[in-house]
Amino acid sequence: MHNRTAAALVIGNEILSGKVVDTNAAFLCGELRALGVELKRIVVIPDELDAIAEAIVDLHPRFEVLFTSGGVGPTHDDITIEGIARGLGRRVIRHPVLEEKIRAFSGTKINEAQLKMADVPEGAELIYGDDLNFPAVMVENIYILPGIPELFRSKFLALKSRFAADPYYLRVIYTSENETSIAEHLNATMAEFPELLLGSYPKLNHPEYRVRLTLESKDRAYLERAFTFLLERLPHGAILRTESPEEV
Amino acid sequence: MHNRTAAALVIGNEILSGKVVDTNAAFLCGELRALGVELKRIVVIPDELDAIAEAIVDLHPRFEVLFTSGGVGPTHDDITIEGIARGLGRRVIRHPVLEEKIRAFSGTKINEAQLKMADVPEGAELIYGDDLNFPAVMVENIYILPGIPELFRSKFLALKSRFAADPYYLRVIYTSENETSIAEHLNATMAEFPELLLGSYPKLNHPEYRVRLTLESKDRAYLERAFTFLLERLPHGAILRTESPEEV
Repeated sequence: MHNRTAAALVIGNEILSGKVVDTNAAFLCGELRALGVELKRIVVIPDELDAIAEAIVDLHPRFEVLFTSGGVGPTHDDITIEGIARGLGRRVIRHPVLEEKIRAFSGTKINEAQLKMADVPEGAELIYGDDLNFPAVMVENIYILPGIPELFRSKFLALKSRFAADPYYLRVIYTSENETSIAEHLNATMAEFPELLLGSYPKLNHPEYRVRLTLESKDRAYLERAFTFLLERLPHGAILRTESPEEV
Repeated sequence: MHNRTAAALVIGNEILSGKVVDTNAAFLCGELRALGVELKRIVVIPDELDAIAEAIVDLHPRFEVLFTSGGVGPTHDDITIEGIARGLGRRVIRHPVLEEKIRAFSGTKINEAQLKMADVPEGAELIYGDDLNFPAVMVENIYILPGIPELFRSKFLALKSRFAADPYYLRVIYTSENETSIAEHLNATMAEFPELLLGSYPKLNHPEYRVRLTLESKDRAYLERAFTFLLERLPHGAILRTESPEEV
């Protein structure tokens, strides 16, 4: 089976200070799961060179793919490129192809702030993906994406075919019991199926159920055996409904 | 001036796998800012002992306060207490006061899953805060909060008076220019006022403005001088409107 792990690094004071609610990380969670990629970390840090460099040093060797969000515009607080370069021990260079594209777009009125957007860590590749006018920048295993949600999404969607892995399969059980009443059955299931991804999510004051159980695996037959095992153990009246296996 | 730094550690496979969109971190961003506390990191990790312990080792010595969200229920995937204890080099013990409260609540039908919720890292304190029936658990500088949003919020709100620091003051400028046209003025402002927190947030396709600039400081007079400095430099027609200083 083909597995992949990923991490997301979200860069921006505006998020940590509560001015903007980040939606890029949640978008990535759903998209990567649908691709069968295991997202293992999300880290949100301020616009500080040391914080960016340190996060790069920590994350990029440990996960197969690292996505960054934010800090790639033309202003003083856009220091993601410099931070990534520092974390990788590379210089920042002005990429001739990006510079040419920016000059073609801006005409004669170009200024240093616009040209700053042609800066990349030395050795970076440009990726045109499906349907991108302006390429994405990648260096080693790091995809450097813009923070503006519309742009983050369009760049990711244009690149996503690169990341496909084997899918996860999912079964869901809704129960009328509290977690404390069914915990022993969940423990028994995990003892028998240690590779199962078993989630237990209580909901307060929901009109229809008390706990939503999710069972997941990349091995569909294993998932079905675990699902049957747990169903047979749960008190009969506790099972409100189940959902069919599906790729997620 | 009284400053404080904080970090948030969000624990849960359901978030990384895209099943649940975390709202606790964003809630904390807004609340901490309003209290004058500088939130420096948000880290989201899976329900894995090693990941929790490692995040604790990394975060708890570096920031004054650390909040955890999630993984404190009765089931197999609720391993936050054990992970924190491991990260701090402490044992897990059953807290007699919590055990008594749970027994009083549950009567004779108590089981091991319920009692598990009385487990804490050795040396943990119980904090009753304002208006809490069931105390929050704190160990060293770590506040261990539940992941269910309603409970996360009520526990945080009951504790928040403990965290108050000096407030931030904020000025906002909405401009009709692109970031690239005003970047030099932002740079000049930062050169003159290096302590200013200056944010530049472009919005695509907004009917009213192109960039929202935020100026912040805990020193109100400093903020006002920086605000005046920047206003005088921006092209006159570029300023659509400004917002008054306020505590945030």
